[in-house]
Amino acid sequence: MSVTVVGSIAFDSVTTPFGERERMLGGAATHFALAASFFDRVRVVGPVGTDFGERELAVLATRGTDIGDVERRPDGQTFSWAGEYGWDLNSRETLDTQLGVFADFQPKLSTASRESDVLFLANIQPELQREVLDQCRAGFVALDSMNLWIESARPALLEVIERVDCLILNDAELRQLTERPNTVAAARTVLGWGPSVVVAKQGEYGAMLITEETFFALPAYPLETVIDPTGAGDTFAGGFVGYLARHADTRDDAEALRRAMAYGTAVASFNVEEFGTDRVAHLTMDEIHARVAEMREFSRFEHESVELM
Amino acid sequence: MSVTVVGSIAFDSVTTPFGERERMLGGAATHFALAASFFDRVRVVGPVGTDFGERELAVLATRGTDIGDVERRPDGQTFSWAGEYGWDLNSRETLDTQLGVFADFQPKLSTASRESDVLFLANIQPELQREVLDQCRAGFVALDSMNLWIESARPALLEVIERVDCLILNDAELRQLTERPNTVAAARTVLGWGPSVVVAKQGEYGAMLITEETFFALPAYPLETVIDPTGAGDTFAGGFVGYLARHADTRDDAEALRRAMAYGTAVASFNVEEFGTDRVAHLTMDEIHARVAEMREFSRFEHESVELM
Repeated sequence: MSVTVVGSIAFDSVTTPFGERERMLGGAATHFALAASFFDRVRVVGPVGTDFGERELAVLATRGTDIGDVERRPDGQTFSWAGEYGWDLNSRETLDTQLGVFADFQPKLSTASRESDVLFLANIQPELQREVLDQCRAGFVALDSMNLWIESARPALLEVIERVDCLILNDAELRQLTERPNTVAAARTVLGWGPSVVVAKQGEYGAMLITEETFFALPAYPLETVIDPTGAGDTFAGGFVGYLARHADTRDDAEALRRAMAYGTAVASFNVEEFGTDRVAHLTMDEIHARVAEMREFSRFEHESVELM
Repeated sequence: MSVTVVGSIAFDSVTTPFGERERMLGGAATHFALAASFFDRVRVVGPVGTDFGERELAVLATRGTDIGDVERRPDGQTFSWAGEYGWDLNSRETLDTQLGVFADFQPKLSTASRESDVLFLANIQPELQREVLDQCRAGFVALDSMNLWIESARPALLEVIERVDCLILNDAELRQLTERPNTVAAARTVLGWGPSVVVAKQGEYGAMLITEETFFALPAYPLETVIDPTGAGDTFAGGFVGYLARHADTRDDAEALRRAMAYGTAVASFNVEEFGTDRVAHLTMDEIHARVAEMREFSRFEHESVELM
């Protein structure tokens, strides 16, 4: 099995109360690939510019990720983003966005990337997500998006959502997308459009998963120190989708979906402990397993054993 | 066993996207008592004015709650609050606050109220919370507060927190109180001040519990329709503290604390399904048990059963 991810590869400049970093390797496809590569073979599709070096390519290729479809453009700069977080990391201001080679990105997938069993359409223009979908024959497709596209490209976004199996979205954006004030109701609305799985990401609070048959909610792993939340959502998606890609035979199984949520949450918790890709690039599967086991303990409670009034 | 609650009894005027209601019975002590009364004998301490009628008193007395310490003042009006919620209920604006008889409230507890095994100090001026503490001999004391007192009465609040067993606070207020940007770190800071249990309320996302020995996080019960979030936090506290009051012998037991979180969460989920006290006043213990059982299923996941790469 393998999983193809199409999305941004970027340089991120981030300021948090704990420090600042200039032009770190980032982007949705990068964070997704670093997480998913723990579980399955990953192929990354996205453009980079002349400022993208061998060192960055080597990080992208961590754990055997196929970077053959990383398009190295000779005529521009890599997409870059700069942002600053508030004191408790719950607010974020974008200071600068430079699309660079992403401005006229036309996804061209190799045969291998087209034939991956699983496809993740990271947050890019819905029209590009549709072009990728048209090229692929994946048995399971998951998609992320954002408020920008909900506001500026709604019809195209709805069209592509109808064609995917799984929508992974921040809870506020899920409400905005469906114009329903309640996250659970919003997820049920999306289930009526075509996807069979909806994941509402809730940032520091965790994530919930809704299908026609099941509901599951998982708190985030409790960290005392969060250094840089950038990429946490894409890292979660990488762990979640990567786990499902690896366990294709059980993908419709509620237990596998729950475990995928746990693995996604665990990997994401490591991502935010250091700036950029530093932590996940050097993470081990044993560390992930240990955190999943802890999370199971943190969220477990036993049935009532004492008579009540 | 019994539990005494000292706090506001109020008339709430609430506007949500789903309707508006004028002068409903509300207040922290009211919501707490309605929830706690499922588990143990409750005694309510707080002032009401000439506008408070027999019908409201009857609701306060639901499930045998002792209203002997509800002070019926002949010289003023009951505390009243008016507020309006935003479209997805995640923002709230206070439109009006009239302290009424609460302005010069001096808690005077009967012998029975002083001798309750458990005391809940609902969100009122820290100086009043201290006066109540001085009168009581409860074996377990829990306390709630709010940003207003953190900003305007910080020394008094810190002094009273040092003397209680359990702090129950919204997560943002917990960070504000401790000046620590992270909720888990903030809770650990409070554990260093004296309390042995800290509960961070996370609104629609659930709640987390931290002691020296244990960590537990529980998502909120997934509702598709929330009508009125007013009083959800106090209803949670009522279920949580009421459960612990009932199971005094197991109060230091991590399993009992976890179950208390589940019962608090379950009762709170009913509270928000209708305006004011309408739903919890007519709730049954069977309905609560059923929701706790569902929540256990919603948050459960099994260990890895398949070999990973």
